[in-house]
Amino acid sequence: MIVVSHRGPARFEALDDGQFDVYPGSGGLAAALTPLLVERDDATWIAACLGEGDRAATRAGATRVGAVDLRLLDLDAHTHRLHLDVISNGTLWYLHHGLFDLVHRPRFDSRWHEAWEAYEAVNRTFTEATAASADEGEVVLVQDYQLALVPGLLADARPDLHIVHFTHTPFCGPNSMRVLPEMPAAALIDSMARVPCGFHTDRWARAFASSVREIRADVEPRCFVSSLGPDPEALARELESDGVARAAADLDDIVGDRLLLLRTDRVEPAKNIVRGFFAYDLLLERSPELRERVVFVAMLHPSRTSMAEYQAYANEVDAAAARVNERWATASWTPVVVDSRDDFARTVAGYRRYDALLVNSVKDGLNLVAKEGPLCNVRDGVLCLSPEAGAFDELAGPALRAHPFDLVATADALREALAMPAEERRRRAEDLRLIASNRTPADWLGDQFTASGVR
Amino acid sequence: MIVVSHRGPARFEALDDGQFDVYPGSGGLAAALTPLLVERDDATWIAACLGEGDRAATRAGATRVGAVDLRLLDLDAHTHRLHLDVISNGTLWYLHHGLFDLVHRPRFDSRWHEAWEAYEAVNRTFTEATAASADEGEVVLVQDYQLALVPGLLADARPDLHIVHFTHTPFCGPNSMRVLPEMPAAALIDSMARVPCGFHTDRWARAFASSVREIRADVEPRCFVSSLGPDPEALARELESDGVARAAADLDDIVGDRLLLLRTDRVEPAKNIVRGFFAYDLLLERSPELRERVVFVAMLHPSRTSMAEYQAYANEVDAAAARVNERWATASWTPVVVDSRDDFARTVAGYRRYDALLVNSVKDGLNLVAKEGPLCNVRDGVLCLSPEAGAFDELAGPALRAHPFDLVATADALREALAMPAEERRRRAEDLRLIASNRTPADWLGDQFTASGVR
Repeated sequence: MIVVSHRGPARFEALDDGQFDVYPGSGGLAAALTPLLVERDDATWIAACLGEGDRAATRAGATRVGAVDLRLLDLDAHTHRLHLDVISNGTLWYLHHGLFDLVHRPRFDSRWHEAWEAYEAVNRTFTEATAASADEGEVVLVQDYQLALVPGLLADARPDLHIVHFTHTPFCGPNSMRVLPEMPAAALIDSMARVPCGFHTDRWARAFASSVREIRADVEPRCFVSSLGPDPEALARELESDGVARAAADLDDIVGDRLLLLRTDRVEPAKNIVRGFFAYDLLLERSPELRERVVFVAMLHPSRTSMAEYQAYANEVDAAAARVNERWATASWTPVVVDSRDDFARTVAGYRRYDALLVNSVKDGLNLVAKEGPLCNVRDGVLCLSPEAGAFDELAGPALRAHPFDLVATADALREALAMPAEERRRRAEDLRLIASNRTPADWLGDQFTASGVR
Repeated sequence: MIVVSHRGPARFEALDDGQFDVYPGSGGLAAALTPLLVERDDATWIAACLGEGDRAATRAGATRVGAVDLRLLDLDAHTHRLHLDVISNGTLWYLHHGLFDLVHRPRFDSRWHEAWEAYEAVNRTFTEATAASADEGEVVLVQDYQLALVPGLLADARPDLHIVHFTHTPFCGPNSMRVLPEMPAAALIDSMARVPCGFHTDRWARAFASSVREIRADVEPRCFVSSLGPDPEALARELESDGVARAAADLDDIVGDRLLLLRTDRVEPAKNIVRGFFAYDLLLERSPELRERVVFVAMLHPSRTSMAEYQAYANEVDAAAARVNERWATASWTPVVVDSRDDFARTVAGYRRYDALLVNSVKDGLNLVAKEGPLCNVRDGVLCLSPEAGAFDELAGPALRAHPFDLVATADALREALAMPAEERRRRAEDLRLIASNRTPADWLGDQFTASGVR
């Protein structure tokens, strides 16, 4: 089998002796897939070089990871930047998450159309590398919106292959697809409609199917739904680690015997961090009994800092947090503590300790935090979850609804979470754990195999 | 029959002698309906007082317009402002036109929820006035998004009435309805689902039907599609008027023997005026032969100037126009001429004279300009029309497509329009005229009667 994704399962750094240090790749896909694939001896993974160390390891032929034959593509830097910043993250991410301010953006100018050619070129490069690596009739699992043209190109080049595409983001509906220029929109749909396409929830699958039907009335889309869940055993091991123990002690210093409201996200507009602070501000305004009684620890990891929109959003996040503290802090209480260290041990320590977990995304393909949290938590913490997160479909029963745009409703959910009677907390936490452990990465990988038609 | 709309067919100004001057109401609804209703002796029209003159005329019982019994409701000023600025124009207009920058807006805070109560209150006031005025079994035609709760309230109060609702804007789909707080979204859908609902195109009707099915699985929406067109005879009379003759002379001074590219819009983000200037800029950049050969006359009428977003957008419009002129103007040529006088005679003179008409809306319920222009034009002018305008469904054949977000595609359409061979222009202009005269206001009013079930 071949996995094709923009980011690989590892990154490399050259050492003085000609050897390489290997670090885990970032992102949910690498975390979910890598442990499954390193145990197999039949897996090839094709991804992009993301730094000088990756390129050096590629030149040295030193990119094997466990049993995985990792092939990293050395893309032209300018082409790669246009592919990633302008099209993948600057257009398709915005489109699928509904983040465009349509009065002002997008503006598809000459530069954008040039970037679209770069997107095509990168997808062709991935396709050629895959076509050259694949055995007759092999299963090829293409991942996510950065590579949405690969299915069509690869199906043309190698009709013998069993190709599947899986989208980890939401998929926008036909109205939003009309925002794209005509040719690119049709190219994306034409490509994806060639193969079975997977999504984390039925809602994104239906949006994709409607988009296909609107743009290509003669094509019947093939969709499947496969939710992902964390590996409960891996989380259990992490919980026992020294790193988590140290982080837990740090957290105890911060929270003490107060209630802990937690969020943990990349600094990403789709995560709706600013409105989360506004809702917390409203909570403190309307629930005086909670002042000095709760600490909102926001673990916020810098993301896509090369994009101006993300820098601007990070500034808005900082200002919103500061505003809450300026308004409510006392000599002995800091209402909001922002932690920007991207350290999974700290996240897991937070998971274990929270009384309420806020996930209020504007839109979210799945949101693994909403499942990892309950699996690690030991205080019957309450999950406040946006109905716009893919995971909501599964977790709607035991979670409280955190409407992403309704500050009053979100504040009400937080108040309900923090005041919930122990018995109800216990019951909901149990249900959350049950659902969150229901789908492992192996199940998700198995669904892609099933969809490929090979098993 | 009773028409219920936020704006009425006339506005009043008190004279010193206790009499009132009567001016036509603004907006497309008044323009379309008033000439039809003043000839009937069975019509009541219920609308809001919009100024001190309206209130004085109401107190004096002097609001009859022709044969129409006009009843103007004197709403509490604060309640009315919340109803109009916060909910109707600040929320529902944005929602249905897809104008929200979801990273930042909306933020449904306590003030918004208070404004929602004002929206309910105004809808109740309209309902009570209608219920008190209506004869047994009368037809009631409720108009537009400002009064979307009237159908449900009125159906409860007066089950004998034959109520219809007509929406002049687009209708957003179920994904966008999820942006609203839950209770208000359900209230709007519950109300509208009680009666037959009309829309200008099948696309908005389908979006409404999907929204109903998503929020109320047990309800089968009743929709009808009824496009509106201008009254060709009224336009013909206007074309012969002295005002148009004077305006045409003015326009000749500005345009001379150059080509005229025209747009005429309220200064409204949904009209996409800024991107129109950017596309024109790109056109001049890529088509040197058009420099000094074309004048872009933009008739832009101030709108909703009490809303900060509209003021900001007006500034962006001014800056974009100035940028084009700074870049391209010569001693003898001004590439963009902005005319902010809201004077229908000037608009009609522009209609008659244009070589290309640009309508590139982000989204538009119908867009009457796209039909009025071709009916008045005498130069076989070419229409460049956004596929996001409701009128596109009808006019797609003879119009050129002006993609609202793709500046390159819009610039290409403008170039094609201005360079089109005479024979093709003639053929397209003929088709445009044929389609644009196909649906009169009387047809549209008749469709509402038919939908009411009475005839």
